Amino acid sequence: MLNTSAPLALTLGDPAGIGPQLAVEAWRRLRISGEGTFFWLGDPRLIEQAVPVTRIETPEEAATVFADSLPVLPVSCVANVSPGQPDPRNAEATISSIRLAVEYALAGRAGGVVTNPIAKHILAAAGFPYPGHTEFLAALCSMPGEEIMMLASPQLRVVPATVHVSLRKALDTLTTDRIVSVASTADAALKRDFGLVAPRLAIAGLNPHAGEHGIMGDEEITIIQPAIERLRAQGIICQGPMPPDTMFSVNARPNYDVAICMYHDQALIPLKTLDMAEGVNVTLGLPIIRTSPDHGTAFDIAGPVTETCRADVSSLLAAIRLAGEMSTYREGKRS
Amino acid sequence: MLNTSAPLALTLGDPAGIGPQLAVEAWRRLRISGEGTFFWLGDPRLIEQAVPVTRIETPEEAATVFADSLPVLPVSCVANVSPGQPDPRNAEATISSIRLAVEYALAGRAGGVVTNPIAKHILAAAGFPYPGHTEFLAALCSMPGEEIMMLASPQLRVVPATVHVSLRKALDTLTTDRIVSVASTADAALKRDFGLVAPRLAIAGLNPHAGEHGIMGDEEITIIQPAIERLRAQGIICQGPMPPDTMFSVNARPNYDVAICMYHDQALIPLKTLDMAEGVNVTLGLPIIRTSPDHGTAFDIAGPVTETCRADVSSLLAAIRLAGEMSTYREGKRS
Repeated sequence: MLNTSAPLALTLGDPAGIGPQLAVEAWRRLRISGEGTFFWLGDPRLIEQAVPVTRIETPEEAATVFADSLPVLPVSCVANVSPGQPDPRNAEATISSIRLAVEYALAGRAGGVVTNPIAKHILAAAGFPYPGHTEFLAALCSMPGEEIMMLASPQLRVVPATVHVSLRKALDTLTTDRIVSVASTADAALKRDFGLVAPRLAIAGLNPHAGEHGIMGDEEITIIQPAIERLRAQGIICQGPMPPDTMFSVNARPNYDVAICMYHDQALIPLKTLDMAEGVNVTLGLPIIRTSPDHGTAFDIAGPVTETCRADVSSLLAAIRLAGEMSTYREGKRS
Repeated sequence: MLNTSAPLALTLGDPAGIGPQLAVEAWRRLRISGEGTFFWLGDPRLIEQAVPVTRIETPEEAATVFADSLPVLPVSCVANVSPGQPDPRNAEATISSIRLAVEYALAGRAGGVVTNPIAKHILAAAGFPYPGHTEFLAALCSMPGEEIMMLASPQLRVVPATVHVSLRKALDTLTTDRIVSVASTADAALKRDFGLVAPRLAIAGLNPHAGEHGIMGDEEITIIQPAIERLRAQGIICQGPMPPDTMFSVNARPNYDVAICMYHDQALIPLKTLDMAEGVNVTLGLPIIRTSPDHGTAFDIAGPVTETCRADVSSLLAAIRLAGEMSTYREGKRS
């Protein structure tokens, strides 16, 4: 099944971060396990001292060489790369890598995009106008604002309805429309890309004890309950508003497939409390499949590719595996 | 060490809840394990069909009988008790049990108070003017407003700086003074009652990524950082403001002894995500030791004491053990 899928595109990320080391390490693991095929959109000079590399010109070449060498679709870094020392002159390579990956995914020639971490302040210094990866991907897909973030680990999937804003702004901007939109997107993605015929959504409350009938806040009554009713009217299976403190317990988690959360930390605290190593960031709502490891560039521990990676490759491996699974489910639907 | 301690006082709670069954089950476990001695302040008629009971008149009698019978300091229920059917006419027994337990603890004749769950709406219907257990305990100790809540499990201790208010009100009422007060109380309690010579406090941020230098909210800069500076000036060991999503991860938890959290769910989500069964609610800031299991009356599963308890007794056992440990540490300080 996986052999018939288009290969995944793994981006360069910041070349001075742990991305190149992780690409090398991921290839070493996956060429043996056979769990997925990817090609790296990066500068082959950064890694060819560590592993055999095949420069490819098209994604289609990746599958045939993957068992013996890391397929690289070259994207050149103009400045010398020193691990741990990011250089804005290489921002263009980081950006080109992402752009190419998305183009191949949109064309169906890559099964999905797996992104290595970038440093926002380095890209910003080079004139990059987006607050982050995800917004850039949405723009490349001509769907700005449609992207939503899901975090997935073996034990839990969460989708925050509000993301990178202050907690006060999250309260001020939370609306019934937003909850319905995010939950509908999550529901559609779980059906299309995760193989779930009838996903079960858990809609979190906002306040302690989900407000306890309005005694501790009324957003459950005025904002969240109406969203649940609209979602049910669309045929979406959902329960809530759920008391936020108990909904992530070991007994509660098996009762749903994704938790729709009202703010960033309501989603990310339980996920990272349970599992830091294998969390995967998944972008939903775009036409392409996109995953990324749930960590940053880690400039402080980035080292030469010839040395053993000091970063844990678990999250990148989980991101590659999940993108591969999603791609397989999506192709299954197509055929 | 434990043998020389005053026995713990276990309250009746709501007699129609799982309290009587749990008292019976806890005695069965603890008489064998020898981990602690308690007496029950309840109606002996509720449990004498299930276990041998000794009616005692003073707490001091509890230790000698505990191995062979459950020591009960009688508090009569005026109405017949049907498990699962709470009756406001028995509110007075619930309240008397708590009042007596606190009196014995204040007099040093009980090592601490362990409370069985109450039903606030039943007590309110009988004219009880307090929002909950903890406020009543503070009033009985003549220290209204001084109480703070700690939740403790084998993996994590958390103290929320704001508790049973809406998330919006939590934002509106969070102050530097409140954080300093709560953190100082937690620090003092960990030294006196938990045997920690130099407790390490982790002060949570409020916003995603702890605000990321003010980009996503400025409460870290205006409210939390000043609290940390004042705490350090008092000689208290603390770090923060910590990004809330990563501070509860398996790698981060060993770096502190208690997390001071900014709102209810920031504290309770990680605690209950990790461990529902053995969470203990501890009241700090009062002259008495008080713990309680981290669950409610569970009227839906309350049954006759002659039947096996359908509720998990783990949390009550953990509450009794922790109160016993705290009492031992405190006595060690005294002697």
